[in-house]
Amino acid sequence: MDKIQIAIVGYGKLGKGVEKALEKAPDMELFGVFSRRDPKTLNTKAFSLDDIEKYKGKIDVVILCSGSKSDVPVQGPMLAGIFNTVDAYDNHDLIYDYFTKMDEKAKKGNTVSIVGTGWDPGLFSLNRILSEAVLPDGSTYTFWGKGLSQGHSDALRRIEGVRLAAQYTIPSEEMLEEIRKGNKPNYTSKTAHKRDCYVVVEDGSDKARIENEIVHMPDYFEGYETRVNFITEEEYMKNHTGLAHGGHVLRLGQTSSENKALYEFTLDLNSNPEFTGSVNLAYARAAYRLAQKGECGAMTIADIGPGLLSPRSREEIIKELL
Amino acid sequence: MDKIQIAIVGYGKLGKGVEKALEKAPDMELFGVFSRRDPKTLNTKAFSLDDIEKYKGKIDVVILCSGSKSDVPVQGPMLAGIFNTVDAYDNHDLIYDYFTKMDEKAKKGNTVSIVGTGWDPGLFSLNRILSEAVLPDGSTYTFWGKGLSQGHSDALRRIEGVRLAAQYTIPSEEMLEEIRKGNKPNYTSKTAHKRDCYVVVEDGSDKARIENEIVHMPDYFEGYETRVNFITEEEYMKNHTGLAHGGHVLRLGQTSSENKALYEFTLDLNSNPEFTGSVNLAYARAAYRLAQKGECGAMTIADIGPGLLSPRSREEIIKELL
Repeated sequence: MDKIQIAIVGYGKLGKGVEKALEKAPDMELFGVFSRRDPKTLNTKAFSLDDIEKYKGKIDVVILCSGSKSDVPVQGPMLAGIFNTVDAYDNHDLIYDYFTKMDEKAKKGNTVSIVGTGWDPGLFSLNRILSEAVLPDGSTYTFWGKGLSQGHSDALRRIEGVRLAAQYTIPSEEMLEEIRKGNKPNYTSKTAHKRDCYVVVEDGSDKARIENEIVHMPDYFEGYETRVNFITEEEYMKNHTGLAHGGHVLRLGQTSSENKALYEFTLDLNSNPEFTGSVNLAYARAAYRLAQKGECGAMTIADIGPGLLSPRSREEIIKELL
Repeated sequence: MDKIQIAIVGYGKLGKGVEKALEKAPDMELFGVFSRRDPKTLNTKAFSLDDIEKYKGKIDVVILCSGSKSDVPVQGPMLAGIFNTVDAYDNHDLIYDYFTKMDEKAKKGNTVSIVGTGWDPGLFSLNRILSEAVLPDGSTYTFWGKGLSQGHSDALRRIEGVRLAAQYTIPSEEMLEEIRKGNKPNYTSKTAHKRDCYVVVEDGSDKARIENEIVHMPDYFEGYETRVNFITEEEYMKNHTGLAHGGHVLRLGQTSSENKALYEFTLDLNSNPEFTGSVNLAYARAAYRLAQKGECGAMTIADIGPGLLSPRSREEIIKELL
């Protein structure tokens, strides 16, 4: 059987994560990486992104691995309709607009685009949907971490005098335990998480001013229990260049007035981009299969039966995994 | 909008669980319970099971709540093709045969039958499929409990001299912790679980003989760490009539040679039949929608996108849960 041909757009951490995941996928192979950088400078089978349309018909699924902030919102609608696509677009506030644009393009071009795959949005979303459906009377709680937040680390680096920075999001273990005991917590994003910052400053910077700017930064840190640790570059390089992340989705519900039920989903990932890439790739398999069946349009994890993600046959799934 | 009309076949613990779940479903209502017992003796809107075919066209989905051992294998293929059906058929060894029979009937009759819904098979299966797809290089571990095993309790009650009995399956916390730390355990069903038995004997029975029969019962107890506790009827009634259950599905995998990932799904249920009933009902919503779209045949949880289980619209799911 011919292997599913996968193109990766963008060769940062996520693109490399998808490339690693391809090594473990028996039924797929890398067609190539497409980048805005000179392909010769990339240490892989690379092409210029400008040329991607030439490979229409040869690529089965394009996985968009560029940034959600400014790249994917442009590249997604540009490539949908030409190729089947999968992305990890993660701006929760704008995702419906993005979905709508992708849906229009994909329907016109008779292709499939699965948007917002990964773990949040992605597997965490799946668990929010599923847990609410099976426990309609209840509350859902999402906890992130312990893990490195790329967005918050970037925000720290924008402060004058900050040279290197890592921000860890840490869920409240006390609140998690309360929910597991069946007690409803006073959950808000701010009460449920702490923020731990490791910061390397430029020589001669005013640490007190930097710390003050951090803890009062609106949206990012204000209102959170925030700890700022000033460290050396050496310590940063040794201990804070990892990409671990994870978290929990819990739903505490009542199946009747007498009986509670607790639903919990947990991920603990040494490498956030490798795992996200692996999830993207599983959804690429689904996109390919759906397109083969003649389906088209934009979809999300809510639309995809889990069997479509597995390389196993339906019979094997029923016999061995059901 | 007309509510989805649900029929319940069988009015034991599971049937009552589905009835309770219906109270929390805004878009569905109980058409009636169908039983082999005299409907007048049931304290609900009940009909004789012999009459069910008369209600073809009025019932949207039939949920089979009778026993998996001898009832569902007969009633399922009898009703599939006439009605859309959902069941919690749980004999893992025979489920593919059952699926095949249901598929044939449902395709002939142009109806949808979703088989093996509940939590195992059901949500646990979904997590086995999903975790393997997103972490292809790894191992999956299922732990059951702590919870009351109906099958093992029944086995205890078949021993001469045993009057009442409850068997709890208890997962090895040590092994769970090992996996959570990223270490591969020496997992077999027997090393991963202990069995705790609470037994009320007939007056004058030989407890030593009963205990010996229990711990050496093949398949059920032999090879397991089994503890037998002889208790009074009073203690049994006070402490051992609950129906709590739950468990864990874990997958420990490598996203690359350097990086591990842990995936964990947990359920902790005060009432196993109420939760199972609630899951059945969510899949009944999916069965109804798929039938409305013109699909037919037997399906499993592997085939169903999570959005089909939710009463929310697609737009709402993307905006609020993704």
